[in-house]
Amino acid sequence: MMNSLEKYNERAKKINSLLCVGLDADFSKIPERFLKLEFPQFEFNKYIIEETNEYVAAYKPNIAFYEARGDQGLKELKMTMEYLQQKYPDIFTILDAKRADIGNTNNGYVYMAFDWLNFDAITLHPYLGEEALKPFLDRKDKTSIILCRTSNSGAGEFQDLEIEDKKLWQIVAEKVSNIWNKNNNCMLVVGATYPEEMKKIRSFVPDMTFLVPGIGAQGGDVKSVIESGLNKEGLGLIINSSRGIIFADNPKEEARKLFEEIKKYRALS
Amino acid sequence: MMNSLEKYNERAKKINSLLCVGLDADFSKIPERFLKLEFPQFEFNKYIIEETNEYVAAYKPNIAFYEARGDQGLKELKMTMEYLQQKYPDIFTILDAKRADIGNTNNGYVYMAFDWLNFDAITLHPYLGEEALKPFLDRKDKTSIILCRTSNSGAGEFQDLEIEDKKLWQIVAEKVSNIWNKNNNCMLVVGATYPEEMKKIRSFVPDMTFLVPGIGAQGGDVKSVIESGLNKEGLGLIINSSRGIIFADNPKEEARKLFEEIKKYRALS
Repeated sequence: MMNSLEKYNERAKKINSLLCVGLDADFSKIPERFLKLEFPQFEFNKYIIEETNEYVAAYKPNIAFYEARGDQGLKELKMTMEYLQQKYPDIFTILDAKRADIGNTNNGYVYMAFDWLNFDAITLHPYLGEEALKPFLDRKDKTSIILCRTSNSGAGEFQDLEIEDKKLWQIVAEKVSNIWNKNNNCMLVVGATYPEEMKKIRSFVPDMTFLVPGIGAQGGDVKSVIESGLNKEGLGLIINSSRGIIFADNPKEEARKLFEEIKKYRALS
Repeated sequence: MMNSLEKYNERAKKINSLLCVGLDADFSKIPERFLKLEFPQFEFNKYIIEETNEYVAAYKPNIAFYEARGDQGLKELKMTMEYLQQKYPDIFTILDAKRADIGNTNNGYVYMAFDWLNFDAITLHPYLGEEALKPFLDRKDKTSIILCRTSNSGAGEFQDLEIEDKKLWQIVAEKVSNIWNKNNNCMLVVGATYPEEMKKIRSFVPDMTFLVPGIGAQGGDVKSVIESGLNKEGLGLIINSSRGIIFADNPKEEARKLFEEIKKYRALS
């Protein structure tokens, strides 16, 4: 069985891209023409996938936009995943769900994300510790992506707290890398909006892959992300853009531009 | 508009109970007779609600057990909430979802939990900070219950880290109480399995209400919870039991026993 991290790396190498498109099909922003259809979020995603797939190493729907529509939204997320897996099975898929419960309760989320929806990866909160997250971490075939340094402006409230000489985000990065990652199936979320922190995290965890939100609408910058976060294989980054691509007048063109920008700075690194 | 904390306190006083029953309708544990029905989780919940409501101040389904069944599970959770609101509208309802995303992305969860499902409260991770959780905190009519000291055995991995002389859980408790709670709509999750920590948290935040998981199957003890956590009005606790009641041969009798035990120790305090 292929480890899902290898799946990402293979796709990234094959199309020479570290681009992830966030399938955040916000119902209040989907173009009018989709709203008349029976499955608007699915149809919108299908359109975005067809426009962007050639540039894309990963897709990342945030489940909040689907749960906003209750059971109907979950159904359309499942339709989206079935479509993706059938047409583009080598693209890495991340469920941005920011889950974490205690012990066996997580089995419900594990099943939903990894089996029912068949995602390769899920994002998780670290606060409850490794012991709580075991049901995710035990899935050797899937990837657990732990929130480390998030992209929001108030991220520092807890994440910057200092424990002896280390910020909390450094402790999270080190614990995940040195202890939680026994199955080589962990990644970290490191926001594009904090390139200095990203550079430090890269120095502590030279090999790990970072999921990087915050490019585009949130103000993160591709050049500094590539300079701060690339690992020694020229990989180690999953660079996400959501709104900036999917709600653009021409999503294909926006995806292509970001793809080219990532390629350019990688070549310079 | 009644603040939802007042709703809890009124119900607690009216029936002289701090008992919360966790509607964790784990599909693999629901009695056989329900599995044959069209909506097994809903029918099971209806049965538990009818057996236990006279002793119950709050119900708390953990959404992981419903999401394990995809869109069908969400639908049955909605049916459960519609039933509850129609028959027992004065019982406080908590969606144990342990969510937290950044900024506006949370709107999806806010809508799902507070509007579509119409819960009074939701549980949330603190890691992203107050700024990220604003969409929840701004809902003056609803309650945000922030994870502080969780009940799992590995809870200390991050929560016990020391920042100067304070544990991380103390900083979470103080920030939520002193800064986040502007609308008087926050509570804290404090596990029954750590009564010493609960006693300290009570001393820092004398008035706040704690949601207390970990009684019963997880090993927490009612006596020490009441002694450690009651506030000066003899309230301030929502004491949850899930498996120990709902999967008992006689859920009504188990609920009654816990109700009586809580009443006894409250009277002694």
